[in-house]
Amino acid sequence: MLIQKKFRCIKPEIRVLGIDDGIFIPRAKGLVDIIGVVFRGGRWLDGVMRTEVDVDGIDATDKIASMILESSHYQQLRIVMLNGITFAGFNVVNAQKLYEKVNLPIIIITRDKPNFEEIRKALEGLPYFEERWKAIQSAGDVVEVRVKRDGKPIYMQTVGISEEEAEEIVRRTSTRSNIPEALRVAHIIASGLARFKGRGNI
Amino acid sequence: MLIQKKFRCIKPEIRVLGIDDGIFIPRAKGLVDIIGVVFRGGRWLDGVMRTEVDVDGIDATDKIASMILESSHYQQLRIVMLNGITFAGFNVVNAQKLYEKVNLPIIIITRDKPNFEEIRKALEGLPYFEERWKAIQSAGDVVEVRVKRDGKPIYMQTVGISEEEAEEIVRRTSTRSNIPEALRVAHIIASGLARFKGRGNI
Repeated sequence: MLIQKKFRCIKPEIRVLGIDDGIFIPRAKGLVDIIGVVFRGGRWLDGVMRTEVDVDGIDATDKIASMILESSHYQQLRIVMLNGITFAGFNVVNAQKLYEKVNLPIIIITRDKPNFEEIRKALEGLPYFEERWKAIQSAGDVVEVRVKRDGKPIYMQTVGISEEEAEEIVRRTSTRSNIPEALRVAHIIASGLARFKGRGNI
Repeated sequence: MLIQKKFRCIKPEIRVLGIDDGIFIPRAKGLVDIIGVVFRGGRWLDGVMRTEVDVDGIDATDKIASMILESSHYQQLRIVMLNGITFAGFNVVNAQKLYEKVNLPIIIITRDKPNFEEIRKALEGLPYFEERWKAIQSAGDVVEVRVKRDGKPIYMQTVGISEEEAEEIVRRTSTRSNIPEALRVAHIIASGLARFKGRGNI
Protein backbone atom coordinates (compact mmCIF):
# COMPACT_ATOMS: atom_id res chain seq x y z
CA MET A 1 0.00 0.00 0.00
CA LEU A 2 1.26 3.45 -0.81
CA ILE A 3 1.56 6.13 1.83
CA GLN A 4 -1.45 8.42 1.85
CA LYS A 5 -1.21 12.19 1.87
CA LYS A 6 -2.97 13.79 4.81
CA PHE A 7 -4.68 17.15 4.57
CA ARG A 8 -4.72 19.09 7.86
CA CYS A 9 -7.69 20.94 6.53
CA ILE A 10 -9.13 21.14 3.04
CA LYS A 11 -8.94 24.77 1.97
CA PRO A 12 -11.89 26.04 -0.09
CA GLU A 13 -9.40 27.25 -2.70
CA ILE A 14 -7.43 23.98 -2.86
CA ARG A 15 -5.70 23.79 -6.27
CA VAL A 16 -7.09 20.88 -8.26
CA LEU A 17 -5.88 19.70 -11.65
CA GLY A 18 -8.63 18.07 -13.76
CA ILE A 19 -7.55 16.04 -16.79
CA ASP A 20 -9.58 14.88 -19.80
CA ASP A 21 -9.00 13.97 -23.43
CA GLY A 22 -10.46 15.38 -26.61
CA ILE A 23 -12.71 13.78 -29.17
CA PHE A 24 -10.93 11.41 -31.57
CA ILE A 25 -11.66 8.73 -34.10
CA PRO A 26 -11.54 5.33 -32.35
CA ARG A 27 -8.78 2.98 -33.55
CA ALA A 28 -7.40 5.64 -35.91
CA LYS A 29 -3.66 6.19 -35.73
CA GLY A 30 -2.71 9.54 -34.34
CA LEU A 31 -2.35 11.84 -31.38
CA VAL A 32 -5.12 13.04 -29.12
CA ASP A 33 -5.05 16.23 -27.04
CA ILE A 34 -5.00 15.80 -23.29
CA ILE A 35 -6.11 18.93 -21.45
CA GLY A 36 -5.31 19.74 -17.83
CA VAL A 37 -7.28 22.48 -16.10
CA VAL A 38 -6.16 24.08 -12.83
CA PHE A 39 -9.02 25.17 -10.61
CA ARG A 40 -9.06 26.91 -7.27
CA GLY A 41 -11.51 24.68 -5.49
CA GLY A 42 -14.73 24.68 -7.47
CA ARG A 43 -14.74 28.30 -8.57
CA TRP A 44 -11.89 29.86 -10.50
CA LEU A 45 -9.95 28.64 -13.47
CA ASP A 46 -6.27 29.37 -12.86
CA GLY A 47 -4.52 27.70 -15.75
CA VAL A 48 -4.59 25.28 -18.64
CA MET A 49 -1.98 22.80 -19.82
CA ARG A 50 -1.84 20.42 -22.75
CA THR A 51 -0.11 17.31 -23.94
CA GLU A 52 -0.74 14.66 -26.59
CA VAL A 53 -0.92 10.87 -26.37
CA ASP A 54 -1.19 8.09 -28.93
CA VAL A 55 -4.59 6.59 -29.71
CA ASP A 56 -4.57 3.17 -27.95
CA GLY A 57 -0.92 3.81 -27.01
CA ILE A 58 0.87 3.20 -23.73
CA ASP A 59 2.33 6.67 -23.11
CA ALA A 60 -0.49 8.32 -21.09
CA THR A 61 1.16 7.91 -17.65
CA ASP A 62 4.50 9.37 -18.77
CA LYS A 63 3.02 12.16 -20.89
CA ILE A 64 0.60 13.28 -18.18
CA ALA A 65 3.33 13.15 -15.53
CA SER A 66 5.62 15.32 -17.66
CA MET A 67 2.84 17.78 -18.39
CA ILE A 68 2.21 18.18 -14.65
CA LEU A 69 5.87 18.34 -13.59
CA GLU A 70 6.75 20.91 -16.28
CA SER A 71 3.77 23.15 -15.51
CA SER A 72 4.29 26.48 -13.80
CA HIS A 73 1.32 25.52 -11.59
CA TYR A 74 2.95 22.35 -10.26
CA GLN A 75 4.03 23.79 -6.90
CA GLN A 76 0.49 24.98 -6.15
CA LEU A 77 -1.28 21.72 -7.05
CA ARG A 78 -2.62 19.50 -4.26
CA ILE A 79 -4.70 16.92 -6.14
CA VAL A 80 -4.88 15.41 -9.61
CA MET A 81 -8.27 14.27 -10.89
CA LEU A 82 -8.68 12.10 -13.97
CA ASN A 83 -11.86 11.73 -16.00
CA GLY A 84 -11.59 7.95 -16.09
CA ILE A 85 -8.39 5.96 -16.27
CA THR A 86 -8.27 5.39 -20.04
CA PHE A 87 -7.40 8.19 -22.45
CA ALA A 88 -7.42 8.28 -26.24
CA GLY A 89 -9.07 4.89 -26.41
CA PHE A 90 -7.17 2.36 -24.30
CA ASN A 91 -4.10 4.39 -23.36
CA VAL A 92 -4.40 3.49 -19.67
CA VAL A 93 -2.94 5.63 -16.89
CA ASN A 94 -1.18 3.67 -14.17
CA ALA A 95 -2.47 5.68 -11.22
CA GLN A 96 0.14 4.40 -8.76
CA LYS A 97 3.00 5.26 -11.12
CA LEU A 98 1.48 8.68 -11.77
CA TYR A 99 1.20 9.25 -8.02
CA GLU A 100 4.85 8.32 -7.53
CA LYS A 101 6.02 10.50 -10.40
CA VAL A 102 4.13 13.66 -9.48
CA ASN A 103 3.88 13.09 -5.70
CA LEU A 104 0.25 14.19 -5.63
CA PRO A 105 -2.81 12.13 -4.70
CA ILE A 106 -4.83 10.91 -7.66
CA ILE A 107 -8.64 10.75 -7.78
CA ILE A 108 -10.26 9.02 -10.74
CA ILE A 109 -13.86 9.95 -11.43
CA THR A 110 -16.37 8.25 -13.73
CA ARG A 111 -20.04 9.00 -14.22
CA ASP A 112 -20.83 5.31 -14.74
CA LYS A 113 -19.53 2.40 -12.73
CA PRO A 114 -16.55 0.94 -14.62
CA ASN A 115 -17.24 -2.54 -16.02
CA PHE A 116 -13.87 -4.24 -15.59
CA GLU A 117 -14.89 -7.40 -17.39
CA GLU A 118 -15.71 -5.41 -20.51
CA ILE A 119 -12.52 -3.40 -20.22
CA ARG A 120 -10.46 -6.59 -19.83
CA LYS A 121 -12.01 -8.06 -22.95
CA ALA A 122 -11.26 -4.91 -24.96
CA LEU A 123 -7.66 -4.85 -23.72
CA GLU A 124 -7.08 -8.49 -24.63
CA GLY A 125 -7.03 -7.58 -28.30
CA LEU A 126 -4.28 -5.01 -27.83
CA PRO A 127 -0.48 -5.26 -27.51
CA TYR A 128 0.99 -4.82 -24.00
CA PHE A 129 -2.11 -6.40 -22.48
CA GLU A 130 -0.38 -7.19 -19.15
CA GLU A 131 0.90 -3.64 -18.74
CA ARG A 132 -2.51 -2.15 -19.52
CA TRP A 133 -4.38 -4.52 -17.24
CA LYS A 134 -1.94 -3.81 -14.40
CA ALA A 135 -2.59 -0.09 -14.95
CA ILE A 136 -6.35 -0.62 -14.78
CA GLN A 137 -5.88 -2.45 -11.47
CA SER A 138 -3.54 0.24 -10.13
CA ALA A 139 -6.42 2.52 -9.21
CA GLY A 140 -7.91 0.26 -6.54
CA ASP A 141 -11.51 -0.18 -5.53
CA VAL A 142 -14.41 1.73 -6.99
CA VAL A 143 -16.40 3.75 -4.46
CA GLU A 144 -19.81 5.29 -5.07
CA VAL A 145 -20.00 8.98 -4.14
CA ARG A 146 -23.24 10.90 -3.85
CA VAL A 147 -22.19 14.49 -4.48
CA LYS A 148 -25.60 16.12 -4.08
CA ARG A 149 -28.13 14.67 -1.69
CA ASP A 150 -30.71 14.08 -4.40
CA GLY A 151 -28.44 13.73 -7.43
CA LYS A 152 -27.11 10.77 -9.39
CA PRO A 153 -24.07 9.11 -7.77
CA ILE A 154 -20.64 9.17 -9.41
CA TYR A 155 -17.80 6.67 -9.02
CA MET A 156 -14.35 7.29 -7.61
CA GLN A 157 -11.03 5.49 -7.27
CA THR A 158 -8.19 6.95 -5.21
CA VAL A 159 -4.44 6.60 -4.84
CA GLY A 160 -2.42 8.32 -2.12
CA ILE A 161 -5.37 9.75 -0.21
CA SER A 162 -8.02 8.33 2.13
CA GLU A 163 -11.49 7.71 0.75
CA GLU A 164 -12.97 10.11 3.29
CA GLU A 165 -10.72 13.00 2.33
CA ALA A 166 -11.12 12.30 -1.38
CA GLU A 167 -14.91 12.30 -1.02
CA GLU A 168 -14.79 15.58 0.84
CA ILE A 169 -12.66 17.19 -1.90
CA VAL A 170 -14.88 15.81 -4.66
CA ARG A 171 -17.98 17.20 -2.94
CA ARG A 172 -16.50 20.63 -2.27
CA THR A 173 -15.21 21.09 -5.80
CA SER A 174 -18.41 19.92 -7.55
CA THR A 175 -19.97 23.36 -7.60
CA ARG A 176 -21.76 23.51 -10.93
CA SER A 177 -22.74 19.87 -11.50
CA ASN A 178 -22.24 16.49 -9.87
CA ILE A 179 -18.61 16.22 -10.97
CA PRO A 180 -15.68 18.39 -9.84
CA GLU A 181 -15.58 21.66 -11.75
CA ALA A 182 -11.99 21.09 -12.96
CA LEU A 183 -13.15 17.91 -14.72
CA ARG A 184 -16.34 19.43 -16.11
CA VAL A 185 -14.35 22.30 -17.62
CA ALA A 186 -11.49 20.07 -18.85
CA HIS A 187 -14.11 18.08 -20.75
CA ILE A 188 -15.65 21.19 -22.31
CA ILE A 189 -12.26 22.56 -23.36
CA ALA A 190 -10.91 19.26 -24.70
CA SER A 191 -14.09 18.65 -26.70
CA GLY A 192 -14.35 22.26 -27.90
CA LEU A 193 -10.87 22.17 -29.34
CA ALA A 194 -11.28 19.00 -31.34
CA ARG A 195 -9.49 19.65 -34.57
CA PHE A 196 -11.56 17.81 -37.11
CA LYS A 197 -14.15 19.41 -39.27
CA GLY A 198 -17.70 19.79 -38.08
CA ARG A 199 -16.72 19.22 -34.48
CA GLY A 200 -14.97 22.52 -33.88
CA ASN A 201 -17.11 23.35 -30.90
CA ILE A 202 -19.58 21.76 -28.52
CA MET B 1 -24.87 54.88 -36.75
CA LEU B 2 -25.92 51.27 -36.25
CA ILE B 3 -29.03 50.35 -34.34
CA GLN B 4 -28.26 49.48 -30.75
CA LYS B 5 -29.58 46.41 -28.99
CA LYS B 6 -31.54 47.20 -25.85
CA PHE B 7 -31.56 44.91 -22.84
CA ARG B 8 -34.78 45.07 -20.83
CA CYS B 9 -32.80 43.85 -17.89
CA ILE B 10 -29.31 42.37 -17.69
CA LYS B 11 -29.69 38.87 -16.31
CA PRO B 12 -26.96 37.72 -13.93
CA GLU B 13 -26.50 34.63 -16.10
CA ILE B 14 -26.33 36.54 -19.41
CA ARG B 15 -24.42 34.41 -21.94
CA VAL B 16 -21.20 36.15 -22.91
CA LEU B 17 -18.71 34.98 -25.52
CA GLY B 18 -15.12 36.09 -24.80
CA ILE B 19 -12.58 35.81 -27.62
CA ASP B 20 -8.78 35.86 -27.48
CA ASP B 21 -5.86 34.56 -29.53
CA GLY B 22 -3.01 32.26 -28.59
CA ILE B 23 0.70 32.94 -28.39
CA PHE B 24 2.46 33.07 -31.75
CA ILE B 25 5.71 34.14 -33.32
CA PRO B 26 5.31 37.72 -34.63
CA ARG B 27 5.63 38.11 -38.39
CA ALA B 28 5.98 34.34 -38.86
CA LYS B 29 3.79 32.81 -41.55
CA GLY B 30 1.13 30.55 -40.19
CA LEU B 31 -2.16 30.10 -38.40
CA VAL B 32 -2.95 31.15 -34.86
CA ASP B 33 -5.66 29.64 -32.66
CA ILE B 34 -8.57 31.89 -31.77
CA ILE B 35 -10.47 30.67 -28.72
CA GLY B 36 -14.04 31.62 -27.84
CA VAL B 37 -15.29 30.94 -24.32
CA VAL B 38 -18.99 30.98 -23.41
CA PHE B 39 -19.68 32.14 -19.88
CA ARG B 40 -22.89 32.48 -17.95
CA GLY B 41 -22.35 35.94 -16.58
CA GLY B 42 -19.14 35.94 -14.58
CA ARG B 43 -19.40 32.49 -13.07
CA TRP B 44 -19.77 29.35 -15.14
CA LEU B 45 -18.00 28.20 -18.24
CA ASP B 46 -20.56 26.76 -20.63
CA GLY B 47 -18.61 26.08 -23.78
CA VAL B 48 -15.48 26.55 -25.83
CA MET B 49 -15.07 27.11 -29.56
CA ARG B 50 -12.04 27.47 -31.77
CA THR B 51 -10.97 28.80 -35.13
CA GLU B 52 -7.69 29.77 -36.78
CA VAL B 53 -6.62 32.96 -38.50
CA ASP B 54 -3.53 33.97 -40.49
CA VAL B 55 -0.72 35.86 -38.77
CA ASP B 56 -1.08 39.47 -39.99
CA GLY B 57 -3.88 38.28 -42.31
CA ILE B 58 -7.24 39.88 -43.08
CA ASP B 59 -9.55 36.96 -42.28
CA ALA B 60 -10.27 37.57 -38.56
CA THR B 61 -13.73 39.13 -39.05
CA ASP B 62 -14.99 36.33 -41.32
CA LYS B 63 -13.41 33.49 -39.35
CA ILE B 64 -14.71 34.73 -36.00
CA ALA B 65 -18.19 35.32 -37.46
CA SER B 66 -18.31 31.77 -38.84
CA MET B 67 -17.08 30.32 -35.55
CA ILE B 68 -19.91 32.10 -33.73
CA LEU B 69 -22.65 31.35 -36.25
CA GLU B 70 -21.74 27.65 -36.46
CA SER B 71 -21.57 27.20 -32.69
CA SER B 72 -24.25 25.24 -30.88
CA HIS B 73 -24.22 28.07 -28.31
CA TYR B 74 -25.12 30.78 -30.82
CA GLN B 75 -28.82 31.00 -29.94
CA GLN B 76 -27.99 31.55 -26.25
CA LEU B 77 -25.36 34.25 -26.78
CA ARG B 78 -26.24 37.87 -25.99
CA ILE B 79 -22.87 39.64 -26.21
CA VAL B 80 -19.51 39.14 -27.91
CA MET B 81 -16.41 40.48 -26.16
CA LEU B 82 -13.05 40.76 -27.87
CA ASN B 83 -9.71 41.03 -26.13
CA GLY B 84 -8.57 43.93 -28.29
CA ILE B 85 -9.41 44.42 -31.94
CA THR B 86 -6.26 42.91 -33.48
CA PHE B 87 -5.66 39.15 -33.49
CA ALA B 88 -2.63 37.15 -34.58
CA GLY B 89 -0.60 40.32 -35.03
CA PHE B 90 -2.46 42.80 -37.20
CA ASN B 91 -5.39 40.70 -38.34
CA VAL B 92 -7.93 43.40 -37.44
CA VAL B 93 -11.58 42.64 -36.69
CA ASN B 94 -14.04 45.03 -38.27
CA ALA B 95 -16.39 45.34 -35.31
CA GLN B 96 -19.27 46.79 -37.31
CA LYS B 97 -19.09 44.01 -39.88
CA LEU B 98 -18.87 41.42 -37.12
CA TYR B 99 -21.93 42.96 -35.45
CA GLU B 100 -23.87 42.80 -38.72
CA LYS B 101 -22.84 39.22 -39.42
CA VAL B 102 -23.62 37.75 -35.99
CA ASN B 103 -26.35 40.20 -34.95
CA LEU B 104 -24.93 40.51 -31.43
CA PRO B 105 -23.49 43.60 -29.75
CA ILE B 106 -19.69 43.72 -29.65
CA ILE B 107 -17.63 44.99 -26.72
CA ILE B 108 -13.89 45.37 -27.20
CA ILE B 109 -11.80 45.41 -24.04
CA THR B 110 -8.16 46.41 -23.59
CA ARG B 111 -6.14 46.71 -20.41
CA ASP B 112 -4.17 49.65 -21.81
CA LYS B 113 -5.53 52.59 -23.74
CA PRO B 114 -5.05 51.86 -27.45
CA ASN B 115 -2.49 54.14 -29.11
CA PHE B 116 -3.99 54.66 -32.55
CA GLU B 117 -1.03 56.60 -33.90
CA GLU B 118 1.25 53.68 -33.17
CA ILE B 119 -1.22 51.19 -34.62
CA ARG B 120 -1.57 53.30 -37.79
CA LYS B 121 2.19 53.37 -38.24
CA ALA B 122 2.43 49.59 -37.86
CA LEU B 123 -0.40 49.04 -40.33
CA GLU B 124 1.19 51.30 -42.94
CA GLY B 125 3.83 48.68 -43.61
CA LEU B 126 1.26 46.00 -44.39
CA PRO B 127 -0.85 45.15 -47.46
CA TYR B 128 -4.55 46.14 -47.37
CA PHE B 129 -3.73 49.16 -45.22
CA GLU B 130 -7.01 50.94 -45.98
CA GLU B 131 -9.13 47.92 -45.08
CA ARG B 132 -7.25 47.38 -41.82
CA TRP B 133 -7.39 51.04 -40.83
CA LYS B 134 -11.11 51.14 -41.54
CA ALA B 135 -11.53 48.10 -39.30
CA ILE B 136 -9.60 49.79 -36.51
CA GLN B 137 -11.89 52.80 -36.81
CA SER B 138 -15.00 50.59 -36.90
CA ALA B 139 -15.02 50.14 -33.14
CA GLY B 140 -15.71 53.77 -32.27
CA ASP B 141 -14.55 55.80 -29.31
CA VAL B 142 -12.52 54.43 -26.45
CA VAL B 143 -14.18 54.73 -23.05
CA GLU B 144 -12.45 54.28 -19.71
CA VAL B 145 -14.25 51.85 -17.38
CA ARG B 146 -13.45 51.50 -13.72
CA VAL B 147 -14.59 47.97 -12.91
CA LYS B 148 -13.68 47.96 -9.22
CA ARG B 149 -13.87 51.13 -7.20
CA ASP B 150 -10.20 51.02 -6.24
CA GLY B 151 -8.81 49.04 -9.19
CA LYS B 152 -6.99 50.00 -12.37
CA PRO B 153 -9.33 51.17 -15.16
CA ILE B 154 -9.75 49.22 -18.38
CA TYR B 155 -10.74 50.52 -21.82
CA MET B 156 -13.79 49.65 -23.84
CA GLN B 157 -15.18 50.21 -27.33
CA THR B 158 -18.72 49.19 -28.24
CA VAL B 159 -20.81 48.47 -31.32
CA GLY B 160 -24.55 47.87 -31.23
CA ILE B 161 -25.03 48.62 -27.54
CA SER B 162 -25.13 51.77 -25.44
CA GLU B 163 -22.08 52.67 -23.38
CA GLU B 164 -24.13 52.52 -20.18
CA GLU B 165 -25.40 48.99 -20.80
CA ALA B 166 -22.00 47.78 -21.97
CA GLU B 167 -20.37 49.18 -18.81
CA GLU B 168 -22.96 47.46 -16.67
CA ILE B 169 -22.34 44.10 -18.40
CA VAL B 170 -18.56 44.51 -18.15
CA ARG B 171 -18.80 45.25 -14.43
CA ARG B 172 -21.16 42.39 -13.66
CA THR B 173 -19.12 39.81 -15.53
CA SER B 174 -15.74 40.87 -14.11
CA THR B 175 -15.98 38.57 -11.10
CA ARG B 176 -12.45 37.32 -10.60
CA SER B 177 -10.35 40.24 -11.87
CA ASN B 178 -10.86 43.62 -13.49
CA ILE B 179 -11.74 42.15 -16.88
CA PRO B 180 -14.80 40.04 -17.76
CA GLU B 181 -14.35 36.42 -16.76
CA ALA B 182 -15.01 35.13 -20.31
CA LEU B 183 -12.01 37.15 -21.54
CA ARG B 184 -9.76 36.22 -18.62
CA VAL B 185 -10.45 32.53 -19.21
CA ALA B 186 -10.20 32.80 -23.03
CA HIS B 187 -6.72 34.24 -22.52
CA ILE B 188 -5.67 31.43 -20.16
CA ILE B 189 -6.97 28.74 -22.50
CA ALA B 190 -5.53 30.26 -25.68
CA SER B 191 -2.12 30.72 -24.04
CA GLY B 192 -2.14 27.31 -22.36
CA LEU B 193 -2.71 25.56 -25.65
CA ALA B 194 0.09 27.22 -27.56
CA ARG B 195 1.58 24.50 -29.66
CA PHE B 196 5.23 25.30 -29.75
CA LYS B 197 7.77 23.69 -27.55
CA GLY B 198 8.52 25.09 -24.12
CA ARG B 199 5.31 27.11 -24.11
CA GLY B 200 2.90 24.24 -23.65
CA ASN B 201 1.34 25.76 -20.59
CA ILE B 202 1.19 29.01 -18.67
